[in-house]
Amino acid sequence: VTTIAARPDAIRRHNLAVMLSQLHRDGALTRAQLTQRLGVSRSTIGALVADLIQLGLVEEAVPSGGAGVGRPSHVVAPRDDGPFVLAVDVDVTHLTIAAVGIGGTVRRREVLPNVPPTPTPRAIAERTVEALDRMRLEGMPGSALAGVGVSVPGTVDRHSGRVGVAPNLGWRDEAFGSLLADLLPTGVPIAVGNDADLAVLAEHRRGSARDCEDVVFLMGRIGVGAGILVGGQPLRGRDGHAGEIGHNVVDVSGPPCHCGKNGCTETYIGDGALLERAGRHLPPTEEAVAALFADARTGDDAALRAVRAVAEPLGRAIANLVNTLNPERVILGGSLSGLLDLARPEIEGSLEHYALEAQSRTTQLRQPELGGDSALLGAAEVAFADLLDDPLAAAALPA
Amino acid sequence: VTTIAARPDAIRRHNLAVMLSQLHRDGALTRAQLTQRLGVSRSTIGALVADLIQLGLVEEAVPSGGAGVGRPSHVVAPRDDGPFVLAVDVDVTHLTIAAVGIGGTVRRREVLPNVPPTPTPRAIAERTVEALDRMRLEGMPGSALAGVGVSVPGTVDRHSGRVGVAPNLGWRDEAFGSLLADLLPTGVPIAVGNDADLAVLAEHRRGSARDCEDVVFLMGRIGVGAGILVGGQPLRGRDGHAGEIGHNVVDVSGPPCHCGKNGCTETYIGDGALLERAGRHLPPTEEAVAALFADARTGDDAALRAVRAVAEPLGRAIANLVNTLNPERVILGGSLSGLLDLARPEIEGSLEHYALEAQSRTTQLRQPELGGDSALLGAAEVAFADLLDDPLAAAALPA
Repeated sequence: VTTIAARPDAIRRHNLAVMLSQLHRDGALTRAQLTQRLGVSRSTIGALVADLIQLGLVEEAVPSGGAGVGRPSHVVAPRDDGPFVLAVDVDVTHLTIAAVGIGGTVRRREVLPNVPPTPTPRAIAERTVEALDRMRLEGMPGSALAGVGVSVPGTVDRHSGRVGVAPNLGWRDEAFGSLLADLLPTGVPIAVGNDADLAVLAEHRRGSARDCEDVVFLMGRIGVGAGILVGGQPLRGRDGHAGEIGHNVVDVSGPPCHCGKNGCTETYIGDGALLERAGRHLPPTEEAVAALFADARTGDDAALRAVRAVAEPLGRAIANLVNTLNPERVILGGSLSGLLDLARPEIEGSLEHYALEAQSRTTQLRQPELGGDSALLGAAEVAFADLLDDPLAAAALPA
Repeated sequence: VTTIAARPDAIRRHNLAVMLSQLHRDGALTRAQLTQRLGVSRSTIGALVADLIQLGLVEEAVPSGGAGVGRPSHVVAPRDDGPFVLAVDVDVTHLTIAAVGIGGTVRRREVLPNVPPTPTPRAIAERTVEALDRMRLEGMPGSALAGVGVSVPGTVDRHSGRVGVAPNLGWRDEAFGSLLADLLPTGVPIAVGNDADLAVLAEHRRGSARDCEDVVFLMGRIGVGAGILVGGQPLRGRDGHAGEIGHNVVDVSGPPCHCGKNGCTETYIGDGALLERAGRHLPPTEEAVAALFADARTGDDAALRAVRAVAEPLGRAIANLVNTLNPERVILGGSLSGLLDLARPEIEGSLEHYALEAQSRTTQLRQPELGGDSALLGAAEVAFADLLDDPLAAAALPA
């Protein structure tokens, strides 16, 4: 049995971290709410708010008017021009780069098409830094960069942070984080993660899994992968590669996959499969899929048939995850979100057929509340980790 | 920031729990080892050991002789006639009942064939209590019953403790724990769990996953299921049904399964499939499978071909788990253990083919160190939970 006597500066650091994390999660809180959540005195709250103001992280406003009795509580909120992180979502066909503030607000965003066939890690790193420079020139000159988070459609080693395999990008064992670090000011924290892993994190913090501890985010773009939370914690596995279900073989005599096997999940529910089923022999871009969904909504027969044809193997893929993990909720992201919108009954019917009875009854299928931004905002979350752990570090951020 | 001032009796209770848990895990420890592990003074250790002796849980011996300098440290060990738990492994064809002491030693064991076609929950409960009575008559009259743990080949609801579906037993929504409680003295803790979930627990405590935090136990008997640990913690899922992979469909055009679907994992790697592939149209008992393995070992062609034919879909089922969970180790239990013994190269070849490259490289396939007793000993572990949490409860156990 050990007694830990916390020193005053450690307590202050801890309380500042808790306060900033609460403000980051909820955007704006009154002093009264902060007092209740932190469980400390009003004068301590005042001192902590003063610290965060001094650090340039938050600002305080006194609400005017109000019909209530007594003095209205001050509202504390992240500063619009405070530190930000750069969130980067590397997809096969395009690159999304956003400046995200404390509270998760997107301040600037650029979407850049990638140059075919696939972008190199160096090209992505350079374009990211160029976008950062443009954002600074165009209106965020005073803000400090608190971190960079990158989402990639591939495996990321949890120990080294290297991208292992991102098959649809053609990347293999790339130290993308180091590449980026070489182009950025020294000391900026950089985190690289798998797109579905980051997406489930963001949906858990701010989206359709806010109230849910056992959840799977099934991301379907050109490739397919899952991000998994178990009891609110990320399921990473030994090396950080958990959730790589895109090449789970669901039929040994199925169509050939680019990986060399036959009947991979991806060949049934990836963007390419969807377009092929509609007779559209096009590169599987986000635009091509959006056009197919638009046509399906207006009653185009071939488009509708394709959507319904993919619903069956999608329900089966979800069923396999549900049998294995028994989540409360499965969030369908990327193109799968559009499929859920257009063919929910077919997907639920297939899930019901293929999942164990009890599981299929209790599992909810949802679209991401963050739309197409789940992975991007998840990248912002991991980029903010250092600052949220120790807000006093804001004093030393590169401007 | 809160300061918790532990009261002396709470500290004593806590220290007794830690000491008994250490003795339970390792079987016997010297006072010197206990002093080091608990991080308290030698006199406190002396008082705690005296408490556990007084409670009838442990005994102490002074080693005789020894060539070392100084007084040899006393050895503290669980009493051979101390409290025990009843561990019950309900399999489709037979029922195993064991009295297990602190430290995990099996003191008595009965294996009873089940009456075909399948045993009812009431029959299993009655036979369990009859076996307990026989064990008491035949030599454990003084020992107190500290708990009962039951392993079933089916889903168990984590909230209600009811057996949801045990398809191969024909059980459905059975309150087996309550049935058993009605036949036992009041107050005996009863825990019911899924066989693979209990097996992975026991292998993690005392078997081939002792040093491993991300592990899957794939149990193959008539049915197939997985017990999963993530970061050392059980992956249960929302309702406790995680790991139910036996009816994951791996080929929609595969053979029909008793569940009404086609191409379930169980129809490829369950005991029935193995016997059928060898042309043995027998009920899938443990004995029939053992006979097939014995024949394969002596070079019987049909038996060897069957073993190798099952190796391919087994490697594929493991690959799907490996891609999804990225475990460090996969333990193959039940009949799958015999398959690994006879066809490791074929299973590993199939795993390598179907798993993502990095995963297949780092995943180790193992046999259970506890042999066929993994689920049984896991049931003993959960039965001991209450006593290990509070050894002072031993004073109130029904004799």
